[in-house]
Amino acid sequence: MMKYPLLVRTILERSRQLFPKKEIVSRDFSSIFRYTYGEFYERVCRLANVLEKLGVKRGDRVATLAWNNHRHLELYFAVPCIGAVLHTVNLRLFSEQIVYILNHAGDKLIFIDEDLVPIIEGIKEQIKTIELFVIMTDKESIPGTSLSPVYSYEDLLREAPPVYDFPTYLDEWSPAAMCYTTATTGDPKGVMYSHRALYLHSLMSGMVDTFAVSEKDVLMPVVPMFHVNAWGLPFTATLVGAKQVLPGVRPDPRTLCSLIESERVTVTAGVPTIWMECFKLLEDGSYDVSSLNRILAGGSAIPRVFIEAYEKKLGINVMNVYGMTETTPITLVSRPKSYMLDWPEEQLYQVRAKQGLFVPGIEMRVVDENGNSVPRDGRAMGELQFRGPWITEEYYKDPERTGDALRDGWFRTQDIVTVDEEGYVYICDRSKDLIKSGGEWISSVDLENTIMAHPAVAEAVVIAMPHEKWQERPLACVVLKEEFRGKVTAEDILEFLRGRVAKWWLPDRVEFIDEIPKTSVGKFNKKALRHKFFPEYYGA
Amino acid sequence: MMKYPLLVRTILERSRQLFPKKEIVSRDFSSIFRYTYGEFYERVCRLANVLEKLGVKRGDRVATLAWNNHRHLELYFAVPCIGAVLHTVNLRLFSEQIVYILNHAGDKLIFIDEDLVPIIEGIKEQIKTIELFVIMTDKESIPGTSLSPVYSYEDLLREAPPVYDFPTYLDEWSPAAMCYTTATTGDPKGVMYSHRALYLHSLMSGMVDTFAVSEKDVLMPVVPMFHVNAWGLPFTATLVGAKQVLPGVRPDPRTLCSLIESERVTVTAGVPTIWMECFKLLEDGSYDVSSLNRILAGGSAIPRVFIEAYEKKLGINVMNVYGMTETTPITLVSRPKSYMLDWPEEQLYQVRAKQGLFVPGIEMRVVDENGNSVPRDGRAMGELQFRGPWITEEYYKDPERTGDALRDGWFRTQDIVTVDEEGYVYICDRSKDLIKSGGEWISSVDLENTIMAHPAVAEAVVIAMPHEKWQERPLACVVLKEEFRGKVTAEDILEFLRGRVAKWWLPDRVEFIDEIPKTSVGKFNKKALRHKFFPEYYGA
Repeated sequence: MMKYPLLVRTILERSRQLFPKKEIVSRDFSSIFRYTYGEFYERVCRLANVLEKLGVKRGDRVATLAWNNHRHLELYFAVPCIGAVLHTVNLRLFSEQIVYILNHAGDKLIFIDEDLVPIIEGIKEQIKTIELFVIMTDKESIPGTSLSPVYSYEDLLREAPPVYDFPTYLDEWSPAAMCYTTATTGDPKGVMYSHRALYLHSLMSGMVDTFAVSEKDVLMPVVPMFHVNAWGLPFTATLVGAKQVLPGVRPDPRTLCSLIESERVTVTAGVPTIWMECFKLLEDGSYDVSSLNRILAGGSAIPRVFIEAYEKKLGINVMNVYGMTETTPITLVSRPKSYMLDWPEEQLYQVRAKQGLFVPGIEMRVVDENGNSVPRDGRAMGELQFRGPWITEEYYKDPERTGDALRDGWFRTQDIVTVDEEGYVYICDRSKDLIKSGGEWISSVDLENTIMAHPAVAEAVVIAMPHEKWQERPLACVVLKEEFRGKVTAEDILEFLRGRVAKWWLPDRVEFIDEIPKTSVGKFNKKALRHKFFPEYYGA
Repeated sequence: MMKYPLLVRTILERSRQLFPKKEIVSRDFSSIFRYTYGEFYERVCRLANVLEKLGVKRGDRVATLAWNNHRHLELYFAVPCIGAVLHTVNLRLFSEQIVYILNHAGDKLIFIDEDLVPIIEGIKEQIKTIELFVIMTDKESIPGTSLSPVYSYEDLLREAPPVYDFPTYLDEWSPAAMCYTTATTGDPKGVMYSHRALYLHSLMSGMVDTFAVSEKDVLMPVVPMFHVNAWGLPFTATLVGAKQVLPGVRPDPRTLCSLIESERVTVTAGVPTIWMECFKLLEDGSYDVSSLNRILAGGSAIPRVFIEAYEKKLGINVMNVYGMTETTPITLVSRPKSYMLDWPEEQLYQVRAKQGLFVPGIEMRVVDENGNSVPRDGRAMGELQFRGPWITEEYYKDPERTGDALRDGWFRTQDIVTVDEEGYVYICDRSKDLIKSGGEWISSVDLENTIMAHPAVAEAVVIAMPHEKWQERPLACVVLKEEFRGKVTAEDILEFLRGRVAKWWLPDRVEFIDEIPKTSVGKFNKKALRHKFFPEYYGA
């Protein structure tokens, strides 16, 4: 067989050749921008020429600080296809973290969305390797800035030639993109995605039994393009020629629902909290979302009650998917097997609420502390581990933490899970969030999901509180729906839990709070709650 | 990313872990045999132990002469997964060709279905490298034979341990399987399939926009497992856990229709002639084939009239697919794009009758004799060429013919095609079957399809006949449906063609024949017809 390397270029070329008429829609700063894959390709070529002119060489890191929009999509292809490395920076990180990762990655230049310029201005003195700044806007001119040297993206593109001959024979193992993930302790850790990994992940994501992204889809990634390549969806969509809808700056639930309606979105993807918020808007029929047939929910598990509500009230299939920055990211997708469709509804929803089956192309195991596989009985807990061609084996320039991440060639997710006899994985907890009570483990996630099934509860988080006798006991932090505030007591919640969870799992304390703090990628921030309630144990 | 090799083992392991309850059904010699993927895996392990005990080492070629059945499927996995090479021998070849390829491949042992033993007995003196013979049957004992040393497959498996530790870190470029393709002139040519190619081809074939094989499918490959790995379907089906139905010895249309009915087959695959024959049985409602939703037709184009008839009368989607032994094989799949579904029916069927769009992961070009791309206008003809990770770059131990097969890193299919502005490829002819009339090209395939649209015509083939003035002119060989024999004249056929094809394309001669000779893989054998009608030009 040919020594043909697996490259991002092959993905780009297919869209140019087969889908030049298909649309890409982008919520730009001033209005909705739309163009075709044909026009997109031409701009990617212009951008490649710009990068070359700005001195970007193979292997150079090119940073982006941007929302989900068409310019970011152009960077997604132009940067890797000339052999450089796309470094998408999470704009929700603290300034110190952004400084750290820009310096650690050694980025050569950075592309910044107009509204995010102040973030970089605020840290410009601390950035060591960046030689120039490019600002992206749809306005006539870029905003006034203290950054220098600074260029306008649109001006650069306008002056560049619209053709470029992308190399066919780059090494498939060479880095195409990178992303940093925040760590429990210490600085963020960088993961490098090879061309090979992105190519393989894209084929996998177009399979019927995974994301099933196809030409007939209209795909709106709500998961940010600065977060694990938006789960690889921009690559998958381009490979198969799906219409893409990029929701732009800080999209709120109304913006999202409105885009689904106007662009006839068929599939969307993001963290559960988004879909929980959108549900309120959709439930009352304010938006026509009849085009939408599935939602990919990941980052944390979407509570089963929402899977059921979306299905029954809106006919929309909400699927749990699972992955990490270190796994490119998709490793698990929850779809029932064909023979389960005859199962009683209750049992079927139990399956759908799990994280699912490992996807084609990789391998999975769940092991105890001695590295032995745990029984597949849906009860025994163990650590979820993967190996495969899109699983990382190292953190960028971080040998120490790389060592901790692997065990016998398997990547340790640090997620504690069960596997049932059908192979469905259920995440019980991050190993650090697990509540260790008297030598037994309590799954905070299980407790949260059960509490969130209470009709008065909007959101809930369970954390470990220190306990003299049992080491740790559960504390439930509950956000009530507005109309129930002041009308539901801690005892009501506990009463609801009795019979639904084991008696010794019942929280020792229930706190009603106004809002659950979220992390930079939209997950429940348990660390912040632990610090709030137990500063003496976890630091202020 | 991990240095994780892309291996057939990963495909096998997924079915064992996730789909142990799913079924494999095999039409065995005496009855229908059925077992689960769980039991299948155990037998693959036994077989791996057998192979090791029989002295098979990494890289050794292991031949099979077998139908589509479960033992052949076991060999599909055990042989590559221990690092040896599965060499599937086309049982329809002439004896001399089988002798040639067994010797040329240097096969070490051969697995033979019971009814095919006489083929090998007849050539046993000429086979040079085979050290032992294994006969596969479901009878108590194997048939008496002059082959020696000879073993019974079932006896060997019974005595072998049911566990095997397949290597995880074979080189992904190492050969996993091989297949010979007959050539226009000279001996058959061998193609080696790497683990990498089979892994990638399997991911691709599970994509929505290609074969869309999924866990919920019941897949019956009619394309023989001795022919380009049955288009890779046994690998794809195993990766996604689809139920497999293997139709066994010499399956006739009644057997196939009956299996579709009894096993609730959802997707099947094979050459057009099969589906043209099956249509007669299905049309009158003798079989309940309501489970069947799609048919993959390849090897040659299925006439448009059948695509339409299957769709309108049976609600079954017949898809053209295209590939070659040299391309693992799938490179083109014909599915309309989403925006074509609003097109007028006539225009839509024109698209569906083409070979389709190149699949994700590879690249295609269509070039004239100087290597320049031809216009994408649906009219300009050029040679179809591919490059990609499952496209061959050499014939096994055949440097001379390898040289002819490639041009600038592209594989030359020798098929003459057009591409329309949407990217759909239409095969006009094999370059050798093209009729060159007065410096212009006439597509024999186009003429055939038009003739086959005549209601009295069962099958038709058009070949070039030598012509003094124009060099070549078309000769149509027509098989009439039984009820029309003797009632339709050559002039009727020509009259039907007038207005449907260009005037200068009208055949100079129409011959009515009883049957069209087929090749070893079921295609129209034009070479045989040329020899029959023009022995003075083409040899007897």
